[in-house]
Amino acid sequence: MKKVAVIMGSDSDLPVMKDAVDKLKQFGIPYEVHVISAHRTPAAAEQFASTAAEKGFGVIIAGAGKAAHLGGVLAAYTTLPVIGVPIKTSMMGGLDSLLSIVQMPSGIPVATVGVNGAANAGILAAQMLALEEPSLVQKLADFKAEMARQVAEKDAKLQTAEI
Amino acid sequence: MKKVAVIMGSDSDLPVMKDAVDKLKQFGIPYEVHVISAHRTPAAAEQFASTAAEKGFGVIIAGAGKAAHLGGVLAAYTTLPVIGVPIKTSMMGGLDSLLSIVQMPSGIPVATVGVNGAANAGILAAQMLALEEPSLVQKLADFKAEMARQVAEKDAKLQTAEI
Amino acid sequence: MKKVAVIMGSDSDLPVMKDAVDKLKQFGIPYEVHVISAHRTPAAAEQFASTAAEKGFGVIIAGAGKAAHLGGVLAAYTTLPVIGVPIKTSMMGGLDSLLSIVQMPSGIPVATVGVNGAANAGILAAQMLALEEPSLVQKLADFKAEMARQVAEKDAKLQTAEI
Amino acid sequence: MKKVAVIMGSDSDLPVMKDAVDKLKQFGIPYEVHVISAHRTPAAAEQFASTAAEKGFGVIIAGAGKAAHLGGVLAAYTTLPVIGVPIKTSMMGGLDSLLSIVQMPSGIPVATVGVNGAANAGILAAQMLALEEPSLVQKLADFKAEMARQVAEKDAKLQTAEI
Amino acid sequence: MKKVAVIMGSDSDLPVMKDAVDKLKQFGIPYEVHVISAHRTPAAAEQFASTAAEKGFGVIIAGAGKAAHLGGVLAAYTTLPVIGVPIKTSMMGGLDSLLSIVQMPSGIPVATVGVNGAANAGILAAQMLALEEPSLVQKLADFKAEMARQVAEKDAKLQTAEI
Amino acid sequence: MKKVAVIMGSDSDLPVMKDAVDKLKQFGIPYEVHVISAHRTPAAAEQFASTAAEKGFGVIIAGAGKAAHLGGVLAAYTTLPVIGVPIKTSMMGGLDSLLSIVQMPSGIPVATVGVNGAANAGILAAQMLALEEPSLVQKLADFKAEMARQVAEKDAKLQTAEI
Amino acid sequence: MKKVAVIMGSDSDLPVMKDAVDKLKQFGIPYEVHVISAHRTPAAAEQFASTAAEKGFGVIIAGAGKAAHLGGVLAAYTTLPVIGVPIKTSMMGGLDSLLSIVQMPSGIPVATVGVNGAANAGILAAQMLALEEPSLVQKLADFKAEMARQVAEKDAKLQTAEI
Amino acid sequence: MKKVAVIMGSDSDLPVMKDAVDKLKQFGIPYEVHVISAHRTPAAAEQFASTAAEKGFGVIIAGAGKAAHLGGVLAAYTTLPVIGVPIKTSMMGGLDSLLSIVQMPSGIPVATVGVNGAANAGILAAQMLALEEPSLVQKLADFKAEMARQVAEKDAKLQTAEI
Repeated sequence: MKKVAVIMGSDSDLPVMKDAVDKLKQFGIPYEVHVISAHRTPAAAEQFASTAAEKGFGVIIAGAGKAAHLGGVLAAYTTLPVIGVPIKTSMMGGLDSLLSIVQMPSGIPVATVGVNGAANAGILAAQMLALEEPSLVQKLADFKAEMARQVAEKDAKLQTAEI
Repeated sequence: MKKVAVIMGSDSDLPVMKDAVDKLKQFGIPYEVHVISAHRTPAAAEQFASTAAEKGFGVIIAGAGKAAHLGGVLAAYTTLPVIGVPIKTSMMGGLDSLLSIVQMPSGIPVATVGVNGAANAGILAAQMLALEEPSLVQKLADFKAEMARQVAEKDAKLQTAEI
Repeated sequence: MKKVAVIMGSDSDLPVMKDAVDKLKQFGIPYEVHVISAHRTPAAAEQFASTAAEKGFGVIIAGAGKAAHLGGVLAAYTTLPVIGVPIKTSMMGGLDSLLSIVQMPSGIPVATVGVNGAANAGILAAQMLALEEPSLVQKLADFKAEMARQVAEKDAKLQTAEI
Repeated sequence: MKKVAVIMGSDSDLPVMKDAVDKLKQFGIPYEVHVISAHRTPAAAEQFASTAAEKGFGVIIAGAGKAAHLGGVLAAYTTLPVIGVPIKTSMMGGLDSLLSIVQMPSGIPVATVGVNGAANAGILAAQMLALEEPSLVQKLADFKAEMARQVAEKDAKLQTAEI
Repeated sequence: MKKVAVIMGSDSDLPVMKDAVDKLKQFGIPYEVHVISAHRTPAAAEQFASTAAEKGFGVIIAGAGKAAHLGGVLAAYTTLPVIGVPIKTSMMGGLDSLLSIVQMPSGIPVATVGVNGAANAGILAAQMLALEEPSLVQKLADFKAEMARQVAEKDAKLQTAEI
Repeated sequence: MKKVAVIMGSDSDLPVMKDAVDKLKQFGIPYEVHVISAHRTPAAAEQFASTAAEKGFGVIIAGAGKAAHLGGVLAAYTTLPVIGVPIKTSMMGGLDSLLSIVQMPSGIPVATVGVNGAANAGILAAQMLALEEPSLVQKLADFKAEMARQVAEKDAKLQTAEI
Repeated sequence: MKKVAVIMGSDSDLPVMKDAVDKLKQFGIPYEVHVISAHRTPAAAEQFASTAAEKGFGVIIAGAGKAAHLGGVLAAYTTLPVIGVPIKTSMMGGLDSLLSIVQMPSGIPVATVGVNGAANAGILAAQMLALEEPSLVQKLADFKAEMARQVAEKDAKLQTAEI
Repeated sequence: MKKVAVIMGSDSDLPVMKDAVDKLKQFGIPYEVHVISAHRTPAAAEQFASTAAEKGFGVIIAGAGKAAHLGGVLAAYTTLPVIGVPIKTSMMGGLDSLLSIVQMPSGIPVATVGVNGAANAGILAAQMLALEEPSLVQKLADFKAEMARQVAEKDAKLQTAEI
């Protein structure tokens, strides 16, 4: 199976980005985690992205905050799908991160998830890889069924609870 | 090759969503285009999404505006990757569409592109399908090279222009 | 008297949505409380909304946060009035929830109250039911009078307070 | 059947608010249309709202823009459900109108629809009145079915169109 | 000297509005403080504003939050200058309060200060009353000079501080 | 009677600020109109504001857009009340102008009206001057009555109109 | 004298960025203009920025819109001061461009001017170069004096105009 | 070497602005720190800015919050480059400060960094001074290299960490 790269601009983003890793683990998807900054280590970003496909990566997840250029910079150097995770900031709850990631110019998309939505980035990566990896299809269906089961369980509990 | 579904909530979104179709044509990817409303034809949305995988679709692109629930509603019924295109509105340039699409709860991602970013949705679909379709990898690389060539050409022209 | 359904997308919304329940209790209106997710249990949402009228519900209150599709999804399957409660988030104080609920396309309204305004959702449900239930009219008038009395009392106390 | 009042703060709002009237006509609901300003004719607003129930009104629709106090001022003087329609402005597409209407304090709800969403206000009024007027239930169901039929028709046309 | 009325929509606004009272005390301006709600006690609001001039008030300060209609409702019933104080909320730091107060329609101004800017409301009231009360002119000049002195003092201290 | 100064940062603001002048004319209030820029002619701004009181001005109206410092800079040099008019821009409809004017630090208020609200600035100036000029009180009351009459007239016309 | 580079992400930005060129011409500062895209020609961006100092550039001006990464990407490869010009978009008037440029992480500043503020970027570049080029100091002072003269002239004209 | 002035509107801004001082110290750049308020001590602001060049300053850093006029007021009185630091507020995370600083009118630029971006202001000042001070060029290059080294070190640590 192709690997997923989870890249973050700063190790302070790890508590958020860990949710992506957890989902990849849960689905049994191989991954690597890296701290690479679009602005502080631009050469590392270029190097990583331009060789990611040949190194066996299928999807890149990039988390960054504020003027969050990481996803776009990586996407500039690869044709692999890049998933962007806007990190929450104090500027309108991360609207700066979100707009800096999602509003990419025509030609270079970054697949953006919600603010701090690293778990969804992991699931989305799995959905992409499932296009070539049939075993993931069933895992994703099971995950969806389990989510539904949990909601139904909470609803059932609520029926006998004191509100 | 798997097909791409281009779904829009209203036929008034067609001028925007046509950019996605154009990119799919350019990459030689089979597609279908549908008008399905999450709110006016919810049964059609459920029906389409829950059978999309078995009908040979690999990716779903969903364009919608304002309280843009289409992408999320489709994603609720499938494990295929769903790409959301926020349609521009007069509410802060489409911020309502963008937030309604991108801020999905944990468990159900929608891969969001920029406001009116249907062309990028088409490219992103191609990047996803390229995971299982090697012929697309070269097409995407060629597309990237051609974009770079055009920018370089414009730069060259500018050097002799009267500004 | 017709019942009111208080639906929330996640049990984490209960502390907010409890305010709606409290108002319904205060007015003696029968109700049910459910956890139903538009995205995780879409079939349950469809099932609930499409049979709500025949099961004796007169009004549906739906609370959800972020890309808050619950109200719209329920409204898609019923002609009962649906009241949407945007749950506060860290994205600009819940502007994502608010816009995702209130900006519904023409044809499918969701009656939206303020962010975390579950108490007002309960009162609004009572105002709607009062159209067919005369006993509620007096209760609403009494509630209004009591609110006015409390404000006047606070004003009176302030006149003798040390500020 | 109870009447619906369509109130607007200025006759310049008529082109927007006419959509509410059209929906009321379509459902055969009796109505009155008035220009009453919360700020320029506050006595008229008080007078209208405080006697609306006894004059046979069941629902009040109030459209206003900018610091849009009309819905809240009317709601202060009645226990009838009040539906607020934020009129689009040049301030972030009507965010000022929307927030001024929807963010009501606890105790006095205004059922808010989207910016310029007067058609939805008319439909919502019909949904409320349907609680006591069974003939409206079928009309609303027919309206919903017709909307779905139109979307399906547009989808069908698209299948043979040149895109 | 004419009196200043400090009105707030809820006694929970008192910690903010106290800053206005403090400034009025500091300038020796007579005042009254009241809790009057535009929505819960609309009759009291009308009664207060329409008789404020004859009762010796020269300026009205109104503090309110969220859909903050208080200033506008008072201004509707008087020709005295009304100063609006937007109370901070969790919705974008009080942008809802600010827009609900400042964006008044043509004909009915509310002199708006910054979010939680009650101290400035008190100073502004003093500036207005100084138009007819010469003793206030000197007090305002002294206040300004004292502010400048304090800034200069802080600057001087900083020159010898360890930073 | 004291004079009102209508200051604008650029003569391109004149079409907006003319509304203030029209209101001053209507109320018979003497005025001067000046183009003074806080940034391009700071010495003129200082000179004007610091001598405005002794030159017979009672109120200063300042209109400016974008980083609209004019009102604050004038207020820094005078104890006269300064009314700020945010000029509409393409940045969120003038939110930059509004925030730059209204969010003044404690100690230096600027009485802010709505975006492009120059007419209200003129009325507000009249309300302030009426504190020392009894003839203005009646004029303001007449103006208010005329506004109410016009709204009532429009309402009456609407009753016989084809909508 | 060191040269100034005026870089834009797309030749569609030229009408805006021309204002920077005009100011550089006016001050007699040598310059080059280039179309270089952070995303479409990332190698050209790296190449240009990393050799800009040795090629005689002293300041880089970068104009870009939406997810405007150009300034940050150039700044990542040089220690020359980089001035960012956010290009106006339909997303809240260019707030996406502004936040993408100004909210740079600690360590890599981009000196940001207002939306479409290319003229100010040119002036700012001149102010920076004036630190080593005394002839520019006088030119900047003359420019400032001429601006003041023009404002004073407009003010004088206004005194005899019919308003 | 020319000095850098670090000016703040209030000593409460010192904890933020200290980051600029720290960077200046790190680069061995002489500096002064002052509390000067555009609104409370406008004469001091004028005095400082208009004599800054002759007193040996090369760059002015100005930090201010809310209606943050300090940078613009200083820039009005000097041709030295002025760097503005928007201080974080509770109004949308400092959007008021940011817009009040960055949206300067044509002719008077303020080089704006991110909200609370005082460290970047210090670095930017160093980049400007490096135009005439060759020793700073190497220091800036070393600083950049050290940042890259630290990111690489964090990435290396992450490879052996338990995530």
